[in-house]
Amino acid sequence: MTRKLLGIDLGGTTVKFGVLTLDGEVQEKWAIETNVLDGGKHIVPDIIASLKHRLEMYGLTKDNFVGIGMGSPGAVDRDSNTVTGAFNLNWKGTQEVGSVIEKELGIPFAIDNDANVAALGERWVGAGENNPDVVFMTLGTGVGGGIIADGNLIHGVAGAGGEIGHIIVEPQNGFLCTCGSYGCLETVASATGVVKVARLLAESYEGDSPIKAAIDNGDTVTSKDIFMAAESGDAFADSVVEKVSYYLGLASANISNILNPDSVVIGGGVSAAGEFLRSRIEKYFMTFTFPQVKQSTKVKIAELGNDAGIIGAASLARQFIAE
Amino acid sequence: MTRKLLGIDLGGTTVKFGVLTLDGEVQEKWAIETNVLDGGKHIVPDIIASLKHRLEMYGLTKDNFVGIGMGSPGAVDRDSNTVTGAFNLNWKGTQEVGSVIEKELGIPFAIDNDANVAALGERWVGAGENNPDVVFMTLGTGVGGGIIADGNLIHGVAGAGGEIGHIIVEPQNGFLCTCGSYGCLETVASATGVVKVARLLAESYEGDSPIKAAIDNGDTVTSKDIFMAAESGDAFADSVVEKVSYYLGLASANISNILNPDSVVIGGGVSAAGEFLRSRIEKYFMTFTFPQVKQSTKVKIAELGNDAGIIGAASLARQFIAE
Repeated sequence: MTRKLLGIDLGGTTVKFGVLTLDGEVQEKWAIETNVLDGGKHIVPDIIASLKHRLEMYGLTKDNFVGIGMGSPGAVDRDSNTVTGAFNLNWKGTQEVGSVIEKELGIPFAIDNDANVAALGERWVGAGENNPDVVFMTLGTGVGGGIIADGNLIHGVAGAGGEIGHIIVEPQNGFLCTCGSYGCLETVASATGVVKVARLLAESYEGDSPIKAAIDNGDTVTSKDIFMAAESGDAFADSVVEKVSYYLGLASANISNILNPDSVVIGGGVSAAGEFLRSRIEKYFMTFTFPQVKQSTKVKIAELGNDAGIIGAASLARQFIAE
Repeated sequence: MTRKLLGIDLGGTTVKFGVLTLDGEVQEKWAIETNVLDGGKHIVPDIIASLKHRLEMYGLTKDNFVGIGMGSPGAVDRDSNTVTGAFNLNWKGTQEVGSVIEKELGIPFAIDNDANVAALGERWVGAGENNPDVVFMTLGTGVGGGIIADGNLIHGVAGAGGEIGHIIVEPQNGFLCTCGSYGCLETVASATGVVKVARLLAESYEGDSPIKAAIDNGDTVTSKDIFMAAESGDAFADSVVEKVSYYLGLASANISNILNPDSVVIGGGVSAAGEFLRSRIEKYFMTFTFPQVKQSTKVKIAELGNDAGIIGAASLARQFIAE
């Protein structure tokens, strides 16, 4: 009997599930809504019910699975398989997750932080090409990330390893970040950060630009609007993308000057701009790296999209293969 | 019979040796001059002769040793135990090191880069307190370093991991670095970098200062002179130390925002300034880190001095304990 992996990507809006081969191929996937009502107390039971239902539907039992892996927002305790608080799930205190799922399903369980898990996915079967040294950066509502160095996910002493969004890229006149520092990457490269950069540059831009006009007008302008305008030749929008690319290139370079990974993989909504964004980040990356890093570390765009979470989550369960 | 470790710290001026317990206690240590003549061809034979002589003197045989570990300057190939070029040893092509020593001594051998090895030493029995996540930064003629993350030394894809001296701390108006980039930490925090910062600040400083006068006079001023003057109350020298501390604090913060180590340990000649320097670095570290890192990552001064090399080298040999 060929054994499989189960991956769960728990998010604030949906829970995604995947049944994967041991090589990381997604054989089945589905999703349910995340019910965050009543302090998030329905989430774990909903996951268990969905898993039981689907396994029965597919004619699979616990013996078909090596293990279950899960990515969760919030603060994850990997030793006890609990989540000790997750704002967007309404989980306030310590939430039993692994022990309950393991008991109900009878399959070994492992958990990690959602950004780390997405990094594992991109590293395993995505842009990272299964290299032992891969840095993943995700540009969305915030800027998150995960670092795999010498084959290990780097958690750090308090689990804050890989918090790439809080690298300082503007130490002197930066925007205030939600973390309390000024000049964090997140303040200039998240979806809202891109708009902040646009607002700042709009103050001194003197040419014609529909995007600048919209900003000055108080209209809602998104990072997507800005990237699309830049690609269509709006010079103001282009200057915004250039500045954001400078920050991303500087951050990617400093990470690489420290860790010399095989690649820095850029994912998340903002990365939908693809090669248009990547090539500009690379330009600044080349400005700020030293020769050995220039020659060996690559800047890439993520390949797995939304599947990175279930794939990376499933990869956590590979630790149970030998058992 | 209690078994021991042998550590060798190969440098451009001396080769240091140590016999250590498995717990990292130095029982014997000695040093020989490094003979770099004739393309450095005497170095390995000299090391072997010295080892044989001392082991006989101490009444020790190969059976007393678990293994030999060595730190070397230059580009180290850990798989083949060779050094593929080391400028300050006059080694140009690939130099057989491990195979020759292993054959002559009959003891298993391991090698790594000298800065990495010093990091291992400080992590093991120095300021790092054997924590699995320690970053070591050495401020000397250059700025080097080593990173231990989740218990592993980080080498990166081309062996350039831990090159902390090339983090960019002044992206806009930095000094040119030997690596070709502008604004690397090494250009402002190495022994010569501190003097460069002093020269720049001297241009606009208007008060009285013997150090500023010496710089304007074209006298030789060292980083040590500047730190001593600052500690004695020279306001100009103090402003130089403040600026250097800002750069070191920013670099330490960005490393920690990425890796969340237990500690950033600062060693090398410039770190002789001790708490005077550490407390100022910490001030800027606290400015540029996010709350979880502020609360969990510490800035420390190295404790082992010159012994970090032999101790870290010896720690490489601990991989042979199980054999």
